[in-house]
Amino acid sequence: MNHPTPQAALARRPLPPAVVQALQARFGERFSTSAGVREHHGRDESPFPPALPDAVVFAHSTDEVAAVARLCHDHDVPLIPYGVGSSLEGHLLAVAGGISLDLSQMNRVVALQAEDLTVTVQPGVTRKQLNQEIKDSGLFFPIDPGADASLGGMCATRASGTNAVRYGTMRENVLALTVVTADGRVIKTGTHARKSSAGYDLTRLFIGSEGTLGILTEITVRLYPQPEAISAAVCAFPSMRSAVQAVIETIQLGVPVARVEFVDPLAIRAINRHDKLALPELPHLFFEFHGSEAGVREQAETVQQIAADHGGQGFEWATRPEDRSRLWNARHHAYFAMLQLKPGCRAVTTDVCVPISRLADCVGETERDLRASSLPCPIVGHVGDGNFHVVILVDPALPREMEEAEALNRRIVERALAMGGTCTGEHGVGLHKMDFLVREHGEDALDLMRAIKDALDPKHILNPGKIFRASR
Amino acid sequence: MNHPTPQAALARRPLPPAVVQALQARFGERFSTSAGVREHHGRDESPFPPALPDAVVFAHSTDEVAAVARLCHDHDVPLIPYGVGSSLEGHLLAVAGGISLDLSQMNRVVALQAEDLTVTVQPGVTRKQLNQEIKDSGLFFPIDPGADASLGGMCATRASGTNAVRYGTMRENVLALTVVTADGRVIKTGTHARKSSAGYDLTRLFIGSEGTLGILTEITVRLYPQPEAISAAVCAFPSMRSAVQAVIETIQLGVPVARVEFVDPLAIRAINRHDKLALPELPHLFFEFHGSEAGVREQAETVQQIAADHGGQGFEWATRPEDRSRLWNARHHAYFAMLQLKPGCRAVTTDVCVPISRLADCVGETERDLRASSLPCPIVGHVGDGNFHVVILVDPALPREMEEAEALNRRIVERALAMGGTCTGEHGVGLHKMDFLVREHGEDALDLMRAIKDALDPKHILNPGKIFRASR
Repeated sequence: MNHPTPQAALARRPLPPAVVQALQARFGERFSTSAGVREHHGRDESPFPPALPDAVVFAHSTDEVAAVARLCHDHDVPLIPYGVGSSLEGHLLAVAGGISLDLSQMNRVVALQAEDLTVTVQPGVTRKQLNQEIKDSGLFFPIDPGADASLGGMCATRASGTNAVRYGTMRENVLALTVVTADGRVIKTGTHARKSSAGYDLTRLFIGSEGTLGILTEITVRLYPQPEAISAAVCAFPSMRSAVQAVIETIQLGVPVARVEFVDPLAIRAINRHDKLALPELPHLFFEFHGSEAGVREQAETVQQIAADHGGQGFEWATRPEDRSRLWNARHHAYFAMLQLKPGCRAVTTDVCVPISRLADCVGETERDLRASSLPCPIVGHVGDGNFHVVILVDPALPREMEEAEALNRRIVERALAMGGTCTGEHGVGLHKMDFLVREHGEDALDLMRAIKDALDPKHILNPGKIFRASR
Repeated sequence: MNHPTPQAALARRPLPPAVVQALQARFGERFSTSAGVREHHGRDESPFPPALPDAVVFAHSTDEVAAVARLCHDHDVPLIPYGVGSSLEGHLLAVAGGISLDLSQMNRVVALQAEDLTVTVQPGVTRKQLNQEIKDSGLFFPIDPGADASLGGMCATRASGTNAVRYGTMRENVLALTVVTADGRVIKTGTHARKSSAGYDLTRLFIGSEGTLGILTEITVRLYPQPEAISAAVCAFPSMRSAVQAVIETIQLGVPVARVEFVDPLAIRAINRHDKLALPELPHLFFEFHGSEAGVREQAETVQQIAADHGGQGFEWATRPEDRSRLWNARHHAYFAMLQLKPGCRAVTTDVCVPISRLADCVGETERDLRASSLPCPIVGHVGDGNFHVVILVDPALPREMEEAEALNRRIVERALAMGGTCTGEHGVGLHKMDFLVREHGEDALDLMRAIKDALDPKHILNPGKIFRASR
């Protein structure tokens, strides 16, 4: 592991009785110190052992969040915003104890501004819930991390997913936020206008801050018209390299693909088993095209030609919704399908992102590492963005497997950084990538981040121990 | 005016002799205290009277910039980064004296990464120069403010222009920066990967910070494939409202227009005179479509139908490059064409941006204000973004005209803020919109901006007196 055991990292002290009394009085049954509730809030999807908060509060409003923040601020109590618990790098672990502030019941779509192609939601709204609630508007929200994450959590980790190549990430798609500051003030960042040059970009500062700078209580995001036509395609390639080269050409030609995903042979085997498909166990690309009827046909034909130029075989279109769904559901289930390759396992998931010109080299050298590993390591990738995940299947009870997984991850990250890339394309830093962040940005840039943290949360009560250490 | 006379705003003190000696020794003829050079660097395109720096330094490298920053930091000397001087809100005025750091000679394209669709440039590279230098690559950089601004300046003001509806603004298109901090350290933000979740978004923090947080010395931006086909169209409408409604429908349908610009009858008159065109003096929309041959035809046909539904007349396509250029050159010259409506005038340019659903109301109510004004006030707008400019033509020597212009601007901004918009869509705050910024965000949000300023530039040497006052 490239970090100290999380639980040992920071000193803990018991909750002050005044805090317990004040929270009990205000929140009643929505304040809990039960072991089960704390256990549930002291973990995420990472393989880390849990680190429990001292108590959990379920908030229903911005005012309640502000009251909790003021109380924690006055008493120096750590405060960790919690959505649905789907983060992957230990973001939610209460390494210094304190309060886990569960926002999952703040799950109302506040206002749909259909003419403006925007919607304002509370942070506990999940991406699937949002799309369900707005589907009659003719609009949709494209950002789709693997899990059915909350929008608050997706802001916190600067999430993306399979549609980012066309629609961008949370960075590009959040217009405005309501934020509760560390000392319990309520501010609004941004406006409902599509663009602005009005002062520092506070919105973007909170996006990706992993709950360490403020607590988001309302979020306004961009929506997009549901495409008139959608078609999907799948194509097998003789090698990973030829598949990646086809993607580079597609993007250089300006074909506005909505999705293009790489799936390696081992991941194909997992998908075949899990979804009862019979794809050849070869490197594959999955495509989706959005546009007019004529537009998606033209895109698919262009991509088919490019694929053929690179040895792509069996390019198969799916325009019927049920065929498309079958294909893309298989892709979306890939994580769970892969977990079934090794019964009882958990996953250490790498998340590097490199300039697309280096993607074939990066994946190719990574494949060589993986062949030497004793662990099953399927690869899936958002290749249009240069982002790929090696899903390293481990038994977390076996230190040898955890060490091997961490060693692989370290090699992959070091390679990506050497190629001008980043240690995390979409999962965030959490507890797990703090050392890599230093390698990526350097201590001087980290000092700027620390200075911002000190300025906005001088007592370091917000999600302490995450992203970077408090000093060099 | 809604702010104190800039020159009176802050105390000035002479340059310390040690600073003069050190700069003379290092920079020789690239250090100047001549009246002409200082005069040139103490103004921008705003109608403010100039406020001269005490000296100007022409930098050639990141190391030189860092050396100047360290010197200014050690001696508490104001330091103002300067590109080509095309800002519009007094950004460059040396209201507290100090050094104007001219970066225009740092104008090298450092590296084109064609496969990655990115390019790294020095801050003095202008947008036209960049597109000229990369044109054989098949790629282009879409962001086009009216002036041939430097990329450093475009980062500083979070610039956009006519292509933002399709390609976004500087906010969406900068991947990485080299930044010299207030105390002369050199940091890198971001990477060459298309997306990242690695820590606080320092890149976005510097974009739009108007030279108050750091000095940009290298900039990596995204490029786009030159479209296979481009077509343009122009269409007259019976009213501004019908034109705007056509734009809303176009965007809601998901037609990926590259540009859609509103031009009001008075601006059409100016353009007709300046560019020898004969467009009817009616509200117009100018369109540009990028895509495949079939794609641009389909887009134009869809938009033609939408325009017809809203009373659009004389929808005229231009697919030949010379016809397109004639049309869009006219639009790009509009600012100068409008200045010629009133010989010897200067312009006070408003820059509000509202949610597109409110655009027709906002422009409509603004038109009523303008009819009551004694000043010529043509309107042009990036309507796909909800951003429009009233170009108020004034004689800056006549206080009555300046006051009337400021009163108009104030009414327009207040209206936009009430509609959920922003006081500045793309020009920035500078000296001119500091009070509006408070109205837009509130003092609590401004306190966060002040805290960030204090953290990154504790001595307040970087472009002092801009964006917000140092305290409430």
